[in-house]
Amino acid sequence: MKKIYLYDTTLRDGAQAEGISYSLEDKISITHKLDELGIDYVEGGWPGSNPKDILYFQKAKKLKLKQAKVAAFGSTRHHQNKTDKDPNIKALLEAKTPVVTIFGKSWDLHVKYALRVTLEENLEMIFDSVNFLKKKGLEVIYDAEHFFNGFKDNAEYAMKSLQTAEQAGADCLVLCDTNGGSLPFEVEEIAATVVKVFKTPVGIHAHNDAEAAVANSLSAVHVGVVHVQGTINGYGERCGNANLCSIIPALNLKLGLTAVSKNNLNKLTAISRYISEVANVAPHDHQPYVGVSAFAHKAGIHVSAVERKSETYEHISPEIVGNQRRILVSELSGKSNIMFLAQKIGLQLDPNNPQTKDILQVVKDLEHEGYQFEAAEASLEILMKKATGHYRKFFELKGFKVIVENRNGELLSEATIKLTVGDEHVHVAAEGDGPVNALDNALRKALEKFYPALKEMRLVDFKVRVINTGEATAAKVRVLIESQDKEHIWNTVGVSENIIDASWKALVDSFEYKLLKK
Amino acid sequence: MKKIYLYDTTLRDGAQAEGISYSLEDKISITHKLDELGIDYVEGGWPGSNPKDILYFQKAKKLKLKQAKVAAFGSTRHHQNKTDKDPNIKALLEAKTPVVTIFGKSWDLHVKYALRVTLEENLEMIFDSVNFLKKKGLEVIYDAEHFFNGFKDNAEYAMKSLQTAEQAGADCLVLCDTNGGSLPFEVEEIAATVVKVFKTPVGIHAHNDAEAAVANSLSAVHVGVVHVQGTINGYGERCGNANLCSIIPALNLKLGLTAVSKNNLNKLTAISRYISEVANVAPHDHQPYVGVSAFAHKAGIHVSAVERKSETYEHISPEIVGNQRRILVSELSGKSNIMFLAQKIGLQLDPNNPQTKDILQVVKDLEHEGYQFEAAEASLEILMKKATGHYRKFFELKGFKVIVENRNGELLSEATIKLTVGDEHVHVAAEGDGPVNALDNALRKALEKFYPALKEMRLVDFKVRVINTGEATAAKVRVLIESQDKEHIWNTVGVSENIIDASWKALVDSFEYKLLKK
Repeated sequence: MKKIYLYDTTLRDGAQAEGISYSLEDKISITHKLDELGIDYVEGGWPGSNPKDILYFQKAKKLKLKQAKVAAFGSTRHHQNKTDKDPNIKALLEAKTPVVTIFGKSWDLHVKYALRVTLEENLEMIFDSVNFLKKKGLEVIYDAEHFFNGFKDNAEYAMKSLQTAEQAGADCLVLCDTNGGSLPFEVEEIAATVVKVFKTPVGIHAHNDAEAAVANSLSAVHVGVVHVQGTINGYGERCGNANLCSIIPALNLKLGLTAVSKNNLNKLTAISRYISEVANVAPHDHQPYVGVSAFAHKAGIHVSAVERKSETYEHISPEIVGNQRRILVSELSGKSNIMFLAQKIGLQLDPNNPQTKDILQVVKDLEHEGYQFEAAEASLEILMKKATGHYRKFFELKGFKVIVENRNGELLSEATIKLTVGDEHVHVAAEGDGPVNALDNALRKALEKFYPALKEMRLVDFKVRVINTGEATAAKVRVLIESQDKEHIWNTVGVSENIIDASWKALVDSFEYKLLKK
Repeated sequence: MKKIYLYDTTLRDGAQAEGISYSLEDKISITHKLDELGIDYVEGGWPGSNPKDILYFQKAKKLKLKQAKVAAFGSTRHHQNKTDKDPNIKALLEAKTPVVTIFGKSWDLHVKYALRVTLEENLEMIFDSVNFLKKKGLEVIYDAEHFFNGFKDNAEYAMKSLQTAEQAGADCLVLCDTNGGSLPFEVEEIAATVVKVFKTPVGIHAHNDAEAAVANSLSAVHVGVVHVQGTINGYGERCGNANLCSIIPALNLKLGLTAVSKNNLNKLTAISRYISEVANVAPHDHQPYVGVSAFAHKAGIHVSAVERKSETYEHISPEIVGNQRRILVSELSGKSNIMFLAQKIGLQLDPNNPQTKDILQVVKDLEHEGYQFEAAEASLEILMKKATGHYRKFFELKGFKVIVENRNGELLSEATIKLTVGDEHVHVAAEGDGPVNALDNALRKALEKFYPALKEMRLVDFKVRVINTGEATAAKVRVLIESQDKEHIWNTVGVSENIIDASWKALVDSFEYKLLKK
């Protein structure tokens, strides 16, 4: 099957996103993950504009990658500089990558207002820059910035800028929708025109300002484009770049082309989440293909149909991209959702038993209070076990106290807990890095001698959401805690007006879940 | 200009999104906002499946709307029921809306596996249901569920299902991409075929599972579809529905059609944010057109070009959709970003003064610690004022203590604060609904007699983000606080390993911002 080349710019254009800032270590670990996914080109940075990127390229040279080639990004020479003296071009050479990507102007408006040179001078800058780098033996990718705007305003000049890059020896001509405002039927028409005229392979680089970056990229491939630029999770300036996590599976599964191998496609969800973790951006739950909600079914009729035949409400099987189907329980749920979950946790539940209806009612009441079980299935499981007599109380809380003190700038967090286990009274105190950590430490101290299995578990994530923003600090808070032991990861939830109390509830559910599992 | 009809299903399909659950009041207030935006049809709910929706329609009858017609949604009759005895059809009549929308099956696979009836029976169900409701004098919109899958598998049958609906009198034939897996070039081709064959107006209802819902909707309009279904912010099951916030401006500004009036287009950003508030879904910062980052510029070269001519890096002017341009300050920023912000807050800053470089360095260092000033411009302003001698210290903290206690189930939050104002020592205590509210109350108590202006301000939002998930409860926490007085809204940030300490920092910045403003 025809191969489509993937060019990832998560590390360069992705870093332009509001809220993203990578450390050098982040960039290296993302490079490895992109290689693992089967990306052909990894654009590592812009050595001419960012000192951190120079260090990156020094490290990147030594990386052992399976197939990804690292590319350095930069602009055509400044109009006042000779090519070999241009600091930006020199920085590209010093990056010592096998591939360099040069962007140049194809829109006459930009030549006039951003570069402030003549149309002819711009063409010379393109030719000189590409030609100089080609003569150094490098693979040169030419990014035609604002190509679609340029083509619409002055097609002849836009095409001439591509011809110049081709004549200078560019290995690929990339049509950039830099402002992200184009729509698929325009992109398709313009890309088809370009593909017909040029012998050099043509690429696409789309931005998402019209919410069409993925569609634009696929439409371009549909008419013969063979190189696609984008970022993992669509990170990028303003509304982001074309999202490779949506483009890759579409190329493989819908267009009958090869973007990555079948085995690598399997890793897509894990790699998307890994990179969101490193980029420190909360994953977008509803993200196509890889989002935690991407195959989540809530409507009762969907649930029963999907159970019979998954194609009825799923465009692809979630397993192909390493994701999974989820059946949600909410006030819109039918009994089938509750039954599905009960079965999953091995609970015998009779659909005609009033218990089943009771559980649904309890879920609805708690959701009304601000609980959300969709992301806290361990709490839901405890609730179902309580309702069906499969629950056991491990301790009785008498009280806790949390103190956070700032004394002349020095911080202290302390928690005390009073509880009973059977007939035994326990009263413990512990410190921590913050109030929740202190509570976690104190609860372990109180319970570990009775339940040594607790030593195997630890908290791995902690999320806080204000769920009623009308009253600010007096609003309700929902805390989600993710915990893990050697075999499992589980999520629990707590809701309260008080953030400490909400954390306590989620913490207790997490401990109880671990103990009930035994 | 040609009018395109907008059909909003935020209240019905939107409620299928994981994490969304509307109260009756939410649904009414969203209905008003949709009417204000100029939506033609508001799908209020599914009276046959959800008791809450029955109450909604009772209330909706009495609403005074400018132009929006409320629609009730339901399925074709059950195959074992006579139409006039079918509970779902009866519920539609009882909703007493001027418009009803009926969905029926056009994909043979669905007829077989979901409905489990013969192909002929399904056509009878479509005819009977549409015809019965037409005879009652209603406007009937026919949603052809899974139309694109159906067309690809068995075009003849899919087309026959539409003919049946047309013959029964349907006022609009809506092609649904229910599984959301279609791509624009497929949608365009199939929609063009349908538009050619049928006299009845044709609509589109797209889902976002391939990240192409907006593009698919616009491609369908491009070939003659005149009715577009979607939701505000793209809320919906799995990956969401077609996002009207991206479709509406594209129809008006890029396709030269009329979706809403120019005045209403201005309200788009405000209405998108209002509905995200009511739906209690965090707004998506990078959302096209309406997101807070949609027109945010970070790269130095973009900033200087945009200042000269905004089209250089903006596909539309943000003001048209009620949004605004933002210039970000981050470690990638050049001096031009700092200069832009200084100017905005009326600070004289010389670009060649080393102060400017120092500010950039402080910003970079704090961002490294986990601060983020992009969403906390008030904290950035304080920082810049400190660096340039425009800051004044209003009090000196000696210490605070926060206690949260659970004593036999009863919760208490108390804060004490020790500080000096000039020579005066102050030591206060206050309670609150939670630890941050207690701190807020105590700080007011300590300072209001010295600075009565603080009475005018209040905290309106409070957001918490864990920014280093590796260590769970010992990870760092970033707190953003939004405050307002009669004239302004401002945002401040605090970062610490301790959530109480992070909240304290953001709280102090908020108070200081208010006092510096005077």
